[in-house]
Amino acid sequence: MTADRLLVDCHVATMVEGGVAYGGVEDAAILISGGRIEWVGPRVELPTTEARETDRLDGRWVTPGLIDCHTHLVFGGDRSGEFEQRLNGATYEEIARAGGGIVSSVAATRAASEDDLYASALMRLKGLKTTGVTTVEIKSGYGLDLDSELKMLRIARRLGREAGVRVRTSYLGLHAVPPEYRGSAADRAAYVDLAIDHILPAAHTEGLVDAVDAYCEPIAFSVEEVARLFDKAKALGLPVKLHADQLSDGGGAALAARYQALSADHIEHTTEAGVRAMAEAGVVAVLLPGAYLMLRETTPPPVGLLREHGVAMAVATDCNPGTSPVASMTAALNLACVQFRLTPEEALAGATRQAAKALGLSDTFGTVEAGKAADLAVWDVQRPAELCYWLGAPLLHARYAAGQCNPK
Amino acid sequence: MTADRLLVDCHVATMVEGGVAYGGVEDAAILISGGRIEWVGPRVELPTTEARETDRLDGRWVTPGLIDCHTHLVFGGDRSGEFEQRLNGATYEEIARAGGGIVSSVAATRAASEDDLYASALMRLKGLKTTGVTTVEIKSGYGLDLDSELKMLRIARRLGREAGVRVRTSYLGLHAVPPEYRGSAADRAAYVDLAIDHILPAAHTEGLVDAVDAYCEPIAFSVEEVARLFDKAKALGLPVKLHADQLSDGGGAALAARYQALSADHIEHTTEAGVRAMAEAGVVAVLLPGAYLMLRETTPPPVGLLREHGVAMAVATDCNPGTSPVASMTAALNLACVQFRLTPEEALAGATRQAAKALGLSDTFGTVEAGKAADLAVWDVQRPAELCYWLGAPLLHARYAAGQCNPK
Repeated sequence: MTADRLLVDCHVATMVEGGVAYGGVEDAAILISGGRIEWVGPRVELPTTEARETDRLDGRWVTPGLIDCHTHLVFGGDRSGEFEQRLNGATYEEIARAGGGIVSSVAATRAASEDDLYASALMRLKGLKTTGVTTVEIKSGYGLDLDSELKMLRIARRLGREAGVRVRTSYLGLHAVPPEYRGSAADRAAYVDLAIDHILPAAHTEGLVDAVDAYCEPIAFSVEEVARLFDKAKALGLPVKLHADQLSDGGGAALAARYQALSADHIEHTTEAGVRAMAEAGVVAVLLPGAYLMLRETTPPPVGLLREHGVAMAVATDCNPGTSPVASMTAALNLACVQFRLTPEEALAGATRQAAKALGLSDTFGTVEAGKAADLAVWDVQRPAELCYWLGAPLLHARYAAGQCNPK
Repeated sequence: MTADRLLVDCHVATMVEGGVAYGGVEDAAILISGGRIEWVGPRVELPTTEARETDRLDGRWVTPGLIDCHTHLVFGGDRSGEFEQRLNGATYEEIARAGGGIVSSVAATRAASEDDLYASALMRLKGLKTTGVTTVEIKSGYGLDLDSELKMLRIARRLGREAGVRVRTSYLGLHAVPPEYRGSAADRAAYVDLAIDHILPAAHTEGLVDAVDAYCEPIAFSVEEVARLFDKAKALGLPVKLHADQLSDGGGAALAARYQALSADHIEHTTEAGVRAMAEAGVVAVLLPGAYLMLRETTPPPVGLLREHGVAMAVATDCNPGTSPVASMTAALNLACVQFRLTPEEALAGATRQAAKALGLSDTFGTVEAGKAADLAVWDVQRPAELCYWLGAPLLHARYAAGQCNPK
């Protein structure tokens, strides 16, 4: 049988677990048919060379297409003005009083047209694509009302249809209390009800929600509020994930474990009990080194404990206007190694196999294996560690999504 | 008279000192003739619209082409293997014993052909160019023998002729003692003599040296050794610059000041006396936040003192295989703001006006002013601060060098 495409003259970091470093195969070949990997292995064992197209990769390395499993890619405006004000000496309080902070992103997102939001997200997505990303998770959470949350999620879906990447959406209604609900405790409760009882079901009915996320932190939402949201998600049959223990240990990791969340994200302040709970429940730890850098945090996530307890670690950009204006997946890899001391192999697994797990996509994505989607990245490197070593070098040679080269 | 080119529908951050922020001109126009800026100002004051070509920039921002004033762009091999070994737990000593560290870069650089060195530098240069760089300084210092130092400098010159950027070279013979001269103090002295009395004059005679640099640090070369080199440089009529006080206060800044150096670079550990000496001698402080990040340093350069004493601050990538595998100028801007607390305007001045000063090029480069070279970068941003705020976003729309758009 003739394959659609044959890749040869390459090495492959399959990222399959448990064997040699990076699941590496030197002098490899890959056969692709129907958008899936039909065969991968050493070239000398290639079962057939019959293919409609053959790509010779001149000794380059192939990895799974990278998966950015935590982004807030769609938003209005940006917060470079605040960034500048802070560096000119303004305090966070002064900026908040002047309408800054997340409230400004909410206002700009609500005010923006769908086309403008789409165009600005596309610029950031270009940064991810040119650093090898083939799948990206995109959260809502800057709309915080019915129309604006749906608008954000529709734009995420449109990116998935038109922008040459696969998109997974997360509904993040419990990201912040919107300004119009900040008057009293009753107002706040009314917003939580709205988010859980109306916005989520409406978004789900429209097919806009792949997972449900929340920001569990004293400055955001409580364990109890998030638990109510997660109960609703479960009732709707939707998986959950959680921004947990970023700024303090608020029991977020344990909450994520209680609900068998796909992932607990950030987790700088998670304790050993939380890590143990994550391990038992199979929750992926999503590490976000961009926010750590930009916020000048000094407590890294408990990587030693995560390793010890066998918790899968993913790495993502957290691309967002407030705390992580990072639009490069390889920058996230570099920062995860430099700041969190992940090994390059751990970091690359965190952007492939473990990121797929954090999105519930392990069956189809995240490794180069027969039967999986032919989503691949081809790199101008001599060894996989270079993907983590360089900051800002243009290493990507080509991207394949479902076997198509460089889809726009 | 008809100009060669007219740029309109843009805003310009001229980076001229002393006026409005960024030297900004909104709704501006730029006339270019003969590779130089003929006129820049508000569009309503434009003296003529007659130009052979007109580029409408759709409201984008124009800055001076960025200047990366401190790089080691030409080298053989890379050190991603060491990076990985360290993250897997190897100590610096173990890596050094196994032939790692700068010695491995020297061996790889000596062994590499000119074409291979050129090709690998070109990849890194692409990272700089796609982040707006139009002028780059490139040092020797991984050859450490006559032939190999000249080879590095010739490749730097070739990049300047063929790669669409302007190149300034620095001879950095006193970067490290080469392995074959490490046997005894007499061997070491013989290398210093060789570097000063033979390699530098030979490189100068061949027209390969624009400035003379050295690494002054207890692990590298002493103040006395560097002073001898600088005396020779002065005798040859060459300006000097210095890697100073990076890991400890070794009096490097004061030494640089004593020789009216163009710049003192790194200077994390420079004291107030050193800063004062730099101010009096007009020495530019070149800040290198990539190395600070990768080395996980905790003592930032004395930015408050530099401001207080009026020392010009430049920002550069320090692109090198050991301590700063950074090939993005906008990443350097971001890190300078986040880590060193430069304001975005200071950082951008550091990559334009002050970087030009650090290379002795202030007369012709570094600001958008009538009479200066038409080296420009055009950016997809709403305000200049975005250039420092984003990490890894593809913000560059176009580069002009001597008025030509996107020279290869």
